Amino acid sequence: MTRAIRKVFIANRGEIAVRIIRAARELGLQTVLGCSEADADSLAARMADGVEVLGPAPAAKSYLDTRAVVDAALRSGADAVHPGYGFLSENAAFAQALKDAGLIFVGPSPETISLMGDKAAARACARRAGVPTVPGSDGVVEHVGEAQREALKVGYPVMLKAAAGGGGRGIRVAQDADELAAEFDKATREAESAFGYGGLYLERFVGRAHHVEVQIMGDGVRAIHLYDRECSLQRRRQKLMEEAPSPSLDDEVRGRLCASAVALAESVGYVGVGTIEYLFDATTSEFFFIEMNTRVQVEHPVTEMVTGIDIVRESLRLATGEALGFAQEDIVLRGAAIECRINAEDPVRNFMPSPGVIGNVRLPGGPGVRTDTHIFDGYRVPPFYDSLLGKVIAWDVNRDAAISRMKRALTELHVDGVKTTRALHLALLDDPGVAAGVYETSYLEENIERIIQAIA
Amino acid sequence: MTRAIRKVFIANRGEIAVRIIRAARELGLQTVLGCSEADADSLAARMADGVEVLGPAPAAKSYLDTRAVVDAALRSGADAVHPGYGFLSENAAFAQALKDAGLIFVGPSPETISLMGDKAAARACARRAGVPTVPGSDGVVEHVGEAQREALKVGYPVMLKAAAGGGGRGIRVAQDADELAAEFDKATREAESAFGYGGLYLERFVGRAHHVEVQIMGDGVRAIHLYDRECSLQRRRQKLMEEAPSPSLDDEVRGRLCASAVALAESVGYVGVGTIEYLFDATTSEFFFIEMNTRVQVEHPVTEMVTGIDIVRESLRLATGEALGFAQEDIVLRGAAIECRINAEDPVRNFMPSPGVIGNVRLPGGPGVRTDTHIFDGYRVPPFYDSLLGKVIAWDVNRDAAISRMKRALTELHVDGVKTTRALHLALLDDPGVAAGVYETSYLEENIERIIQAIA
Repeated sequence: MTRAIRKVFIANRGEIAVRIIRAARELGLQTVLGCSEADADSLAARMADGVEVLGPAPAAKSYLDTRAVVDAALRSGADAVHPGYGFLSENAAFAQALKDAGLIFVGPSPETISLMGDKAAARACARRAGVPTVPGSDGVVEHVGEAQREALKVGYPVMLKAAAGGGGRGIRVAQDADELAAEFDKATREAESAFGYGGLYLERFVGRAHHVEVQIMGDGVRAIHLYDRECSLQRRRQKLMEEAPSPSLDDEVRGRLCASAVALAESVGYVGVGTIEYLFDATTSEFFFIEMNTRVQVEHPVTEMVTGIDIVRESLRLATGEALGFAQEDIVLRGAAIECRINAEDPVRNFMPSPGVIGNVRLPGGPGVRTDTHIFDGYRVPPFYDSLLGKVIAWDVNRDAAISRMKRALTELHVDGVKTTRALHLALLDDPGVAAGVYETSYLEENIERIIQAIA
Repeated sequence: MTRAIRKVFIANRGEIAVRIIRAARELGLQTVLGCSEADADSLAARMADGVEVLGPAPAAKSYLDTRAVVDAALRSGADAVHPGYGFLSENAAFAQALKDAGLIFVGPSPETISLMGDKAAARACARRAGVPTVPGSDGVVEHVGEAQREALKVGYPVMLKAAAGGGGRGIRVAQDADELAAEFDKATREAESAFGYGGLYLERFVGRAHHVEVQIMGDGVRAIHLYDRECSLQRRRQKLMEEAPSPSLDDEVRGRLCASAVALAESVGYVGVGTIEYLFDATTSEFFFIEMNTRVQVEHPVTEMVTGIDIVRESLRLATGEALGFAQEDIVLRGAAIECRINAEDPVRNFMPSPGVIGNVRLPGGPGVRTDTHIFDGYRVPPFYDSLLGKVIAWDVNRDAAISRMKRALTELHVDGVKTTRALHLALLDDPGVAAGVYETSYLEENIERIIQAIA
C-alpha cells in the first residue's frame, strides 16, 4: 500500500537539509524546513518553500524536541518528515510519534530503529542473519564482574561500547581486567548522559582494521546493496575523508561483504536506506558487523557518484511504500569517488572549532566535482552545532585520477572568516599511506602530527 | 613517438580557459593563460600558474593574432598550446606556425584542420569514407550560373554555405533560382569578410531535421566514438541547449551513426578530439554529414557526464602522441545529461547582449549538477566577446529525471547585474516539445515567441 507525499518536512539543518530540499524539489515535492531560531536565516531556510521554527538554538529545545518537531510538521501541512542524520534520525520514539500523528517518517519502522539502536540486540540479529560479528558479549553486560568474565572469553584488549550509542561515541578500550574495572563505571555514566541509557556491551578490540560499510536500501520485501565505502580515516572516531569503493577489498571479499549486508537488511524487512558498518581485517580478509545506521550517512555522496543512484531521492520514494525502483543488477560501480569533510576547525590547534562569519566563498566546479554545502557569503557559523561546513566530492575513472581531481578541487575552494580542514585534506591526499589506499582506522591518529606539521 | 607536456599555454578565455586549466592541473601540468588586456584579471587569469597578455581587447589584436600567441607561448616556456574553441582553434596556419616554432598544438595536424575547414572538401572526404552527405555541389560553386545548375540537380530549397565557415555562420537559404541569384553575391561578400575566403558551396536545405553530432577521439591510427549529442535547440544557428544521448535516435540508428563517425575519423588519421555533425531526418531515419569540428565543443560536458570520460584531459594526452587510453567497449552510456548555456542576454528584448558587473552569484550544486563558468562577484562582462557566462549541466538516470534536476539547478542559479537566459531555459524545459524530446532545428525559432511570452 503506497501513500503519496506532496510536502516533506525537513527536521534538520546545514548541508543535509539543503541536500534533502534538492532531492524533494527534483521529485516535485513541496518542502518545509523545521529549524532552530539560530538557523531561521540559513541557506536551507532560504531554499525551502516554507520554514517552521522549532525553538531556541540548543538542539534539546529544537532539533531534539520530538513534540516540537511533530507539532511543527503537523502545522506545516506536511505528509512526511525527513530526519536527515544525527538529531532524531535514529530515535524510535520520534518515528513512533510521527506515525501516531498520521505522518510518514522517512526511514524504517520504529521497531527496526529500536532493534538496530540496541547495539547488543543488533549484533545478535546480525549473527542470526549469518553475518560475522566481532567476538564479544551476547548482550548487555550488567556489571564489572560479568564484563571481566566476557573479556576473558574474547581476549584482551576489549572495547566497552554503549548499547544505545553510535557514530563512534561512548567507546572505551581496556587492555586488561584492572583497566576494564576502572573504565566500567565511567563508561556507564558517559553512556547514560550521552544516550539516556547506561547499558554497555563488550567486544574484542580489533586494532589494525579497516572501517568499511555497505550502503543498502530495502522496501520491506527485498533489499539491494549499493556497494561499499572505506571510512577508516577517522580522528577520535569521527570520519574525515571517505571513499568508494574501498581500496582494501578485492572483488571476492566485496561480493561476500555486500551479500551479507543484503541478507541482514532482508532479515529485518528493512524499509528505506541504511548503512551496515563493518570492521575488515585485510590480513585475514575477515569482516565483522559493527552496527547498522538506519538513516542516510554524511558520506552517502561517494556512493551516489560511483553508482549514479540518488540515495536521498530513493529514501523519499521508499517512504511512500513503493517497491524498490532498481534491481541489484542495475547497480553498477563506475570509477572511484572521494569525499573530504570541510569543517570549521583549526587542525593546527587541535581541531579547535573556528566560529565566525564566512566570506569570499569560492566553491570548486567543473567535471567530476560536487559540493554539498550550506555556506554563503555573510553566513555566521553558529556555535551550537557540529562544525561541518560542507563536503567536497570528486569522482573520476579510477582512484588515482579521483585523488588528482580532489586536489584540484580543494585548490579551487576558498573560504574566508573561519579556519577549515581544507589544507589538512590536501596534505592527507599527498600522504603516502593515503595515496596508496593502505590506511587503517588507527592510521590518522598515528600519523596526524606528521601530517599537520606539513601544513602548520 | 610521444613528447611530454609539462606546461600548457591556453590561448583562450572565459569558461573554456577555466575548463582547460582544470584538466591540465589534474594531469599535473603547469598552466599559462594567454589572454587579452581585457581578460588579464579574469577568473582564468587568477587560476592559471602564469599569465601572458597577448594584446588589446579586440580579438584581432589578441586571441586571433597568430604571431602574438606563438610569441607569448614561446616566451612562457610552454611545450604546448591548447586553443579551446573559437578564435584560432580551427586555423591550420596557426597550428602550422606552432609546429614551426617547435610547440605542440593540442589538436589535429594542420593538414586535417585544412581538410575539414574546407567544407566542400570535407563533404567529399566524408563520401569517400562512406558517410552520407546532404545532396549538393561536389565542391565550391564558382558563380551564380553554376549554383543554379547544381540547385536544379539537388532540388529547392537549397542552402548556400561558406566553404570556410562553421558554427552555423554564413548560411543562406534560397527557395528558387531568383532568390539564389539574389543571395549569391551577398553570401560571397559575407563569407569573405567573416572567414577571409568567399568560396560557397550548395546543399539541399533539409527543413525538418535534427542536428545530431558524434564526439570522437583518435590517435592517428585508431578512433573511437563517445556517442552522440542532440543540438537541435538553436536560435539563428547558435545552440542554446544540448543533450546526450539524442532523444531522436534509436539504438540501431545510433550504432550506424557512431560507426560512420569513427570511419570518417580513421580515414583521415585523426589525432585528438573532434565532433562530426549530422542532419538527421527522423521520418526516414536518414542521416547526412554536415561538417567536422576539429576541436573541443562548447557542449562537450554532456558527453563527459554520460560516458565518464574527460574529453579535455584526453585532448591533452593525445597531443603528446600517446595512443588512445580507451577501447570502444570502455565507453558505456549511463543516464542522460542536458546543458543549458547561460548567456548575458535579454531573451525578452530579442536576446540583446546585457553587459554589466556581476554580483551575488549563486551557482547550483548537489548531486548530478555541474557548472562550468568563469564568473565571480565583481566580474565585469567585457563587451568584446560572446555572451556566454557559463554552462549548467545536469545528469540523471534518465532524460525525465535529468530535466527535473536541471530545473532544480536553474532555480538555484542566481546572478545579479546582467540579464541572462536562465528563465528562458526554465520555460524551455517546461515546453511540451522539449519535454517530450521531439524538437527539430526549426523548433525554437517557430516557438520562441510563445515561449518568451511565458517569461516576459
